[in-house]
Amino acid sequence: MKFGINLFPTTGPADKGAVEHFDDALRLAVLAEELGFHHVKTVEHYFFDYGGYSPDPVTFLAAAAARTRRIRLVTGAVIPAFTHPVKLAGQLAMLDNLSHGRLDVGFARGFLPDEFAAFEIPMDESRERFEEGVEACERLWAGEDVVFSGRFHRFGPVTLLPRPAQRPHPRVLVAASITPESCEAAGRAGRGLMLVPSINKPERTREMIDLYRRARAEAGHDPATGEVHLSYGSYLHEDAAAARELGRGYSAHTNAKMVKAVSAWAHTSSGDYEGYRRIVAKVNSANFDKQVDEGKALVGSPEQVRAQVRQIREWYGDCTVSLQVISGNMPHEESERTMRLFAREVMPEFTATATAAAPESEAVLTG
Amino acid sequence: MKFGINLFPTTGPADKGAVEHFDDALRLAVLAEELGFHHVKTVEHYFFDYGGYSPDPVTFLAAAAARTRRIRLVTGAVIPAFTHPVKLAGQLAMLDNLSHGRLDVGFARGFLPDEFAAFEIPMDESRERFEEGVEACERLWAGEDVVFSGRFHRFGPVTLLPRPAQRPHPRVLVAASITPESCEAAGRAGRGLMLVPSINKPERTREMIDLYRRARAEAGHDPATGEVHLSYGSYLHEDAAAARELGRGYSAHTNAKMVKAVSAWAHTSSGDYEGYRRIVAKVNSANFDKQVDEGKALVGSPEQVRAQVRQIREWYGDCTVSLQVISGNMPHEESERTMRLFAREVMPEFTATATAAAPESEAVLTG
Repeated sequence: MKFGINLFPTTGPADKGAVEHFDDALRLAVLAEELGFHHVKTVEHYFFDYGGYSPDPVTFLAAAAARTRRIRLVTGAVIPAFTHPVKLAGQLAMLDNLSHGRLDVGFARGFLPDEFAAFEIPMDESRERFEEGVEACERLWAGEDVVFSGRFHRFGPVTLLPRPAQRPHPRVLVAASITPESCEAAGRAGRGLMLVPSINKPERTREMIDLYRRARAEAGHDPATGEVHLSYGSYLHEDAAAARELGRGYSAHTNAKMVKAVSAWAHTSSGDYEGYRRIVAKVNSANFDKQVDEGKALVGSPEQVRAQVRQIREWYGDCTVSLQVISGNMPHEESERTMRLFAREVMPEFTATATAAAPESEAVLTG
Repeated sequence: MKFGINLFPTTGPADKGAVEHFDDALRLAVLAEELGFHHVKTVEHYFFDYGGYSPDPVTFLAAAAARTRRIRLVTGAVIPAFTHPVKLAGQLAMLDNLSHGRLDVGFARGFLPDEFAAFEIPMDESRERFEEGVEACERLWAGEDVVFSGRFHRFGPVTLLPRPAQRPHPRVLVAASITPESCEAAGRAGRGLMLVPSINKPERTREMIDLYRRARAEAGHDPATGEVHLSYGSYLHEDAAAARELGRGYSAHTNAKMVKAVSAWAHTSSGDYEGYRRIVAKVNSANFDKQVDEGKALVGSPEQVRAQVRQIREWYGDCTVSLQVISGNMPHEESERTMRLFAREVMPEFTATATAAAPESEAVLTG
């Protein structure tokens, strides 16, 4: 298994100023590398305290690239519906070069109605814009004299500069939430997969991963290069009761921020987003203890979290776990504590095997 | 006066790989800070060896911000026609926070037909899109619950996150090439001005700056906060003859790359770009020695360049000069030589006065 950190801010100006937020986030990226984490990831969101401090993940990851040497940089994710593919592919290619080929690109469809409204994009076009955007970036990275004729974009022949450092292009992952077909499509296309296990029952997540892996194998893609990213709200403390109690507070803070961000769903409906109208009620009724007990968050003492990760491995096999270590406006020292405890007392049990099985990850995980 | 570097790459894959290009560019940004330069600047261009290694200046400047502490970061420029204002204002606000308020934002209209074609934007809309984009960014930075109703974009009410570190927003500069009205408008709006002195006679540049300053004063803006940025192809060598000879080569390389980038003007016409159809012929007929002798480039021994800067000060008064120190695919050590010679043997004569006159710049220029 591989482990990274997901810097998903649920922080706004009333919680913490943005200068301090970015200082802290960069320090955590550097610490993650020192502790042997595999990646640092961040989101694309706008306007709300739910991710809104990160309207452009590439800008933050470029700064993180300049302060680190080995850790991988992961967009988790960029939303192609909001940026012209020539710009998006270009800025990601710059980051790939600035980081000496350490970029993995997660793409997502986006799901917040207020973001689509601000970008003047109908939500009913989101799936098609997403698929077209990913394809356009892959073609711009890999090809020369590219002529693109999509529904939303038509351009070319053009040859993108700079060429990405990784050839034919950086690893591509696609985010899926609740739609099995998206997982199947990602597998068929040979892309990686990003899931949020907290929003589905483990059986459902397992089904989606199985579908992905089967489609990938059937399409003839090397199983060893498949990658499933799973993000977990994470909080570790030496004392189990303190972990549960403080973790509950960070979780409640995150949920409160998410409720505001998704509130537009109360008066939005879109055929492209079946089931999203119930999202506010779902977040409001989320039960923290049940979430932890059902293996949807990594919260507890190191011993407890080891058991939780064993459960994840049993359910989903060899996957890549991202620890959300700042969500809930967690104080910086608590983020550090969580990362240090995880790296020292949890990670070794699960990365030893991974290193033996996948030599390419050795350089990243050791040293 | 203030002096910075403009990292305008005219480099492509056949000249230098992009990993090496960005490594070198970051080293020059760090060196510029060490040598006491005021700013590091870079461009937005696509596809061609003329700036094409820099499709997103913010991505590079974010990396530069992470490696430096005092030097100002300047987009020279971003092109709002190519990026939705919510994305552009958001990523620039991130950079302003990541750099602790060291960002100055130059905006440009863009002028390469192939770029507009790839972004699917009619060139005849370029001026209006530029003006609307700058206004949208300023409003998103400064205001809350912003409702924007332009010709090309309509959104809101939204409150941008993160809020910029500099309040109400970072300094805004607008690029003008040959149109006096643009300079007047920049002055009236209280914005800074970016000019490229190599494309006009000095009398014309002088006129444009005078118009800018007059409009600025008449509109009641503090003259002390006005700023005129001038970019010059720069090459210094201890030996005057060597400087002239090598500088000639870098200049020829730059012009050759520019000719390819502007070649589409041979079959393009736009009412928004009067006079641009002759641009290919103009670049092709550019005479290097005449350029240097007419004060349109900083090339020579330190003594010669001191005289050239004195001439610039005489013509244009207190302005901010950006040295293009990588254009022409200049070898890295030659860029360093140019910067070191300029910092040691030219800059002191001109910054002493500036420091005395404008105490706010002292922290940046000394130490």
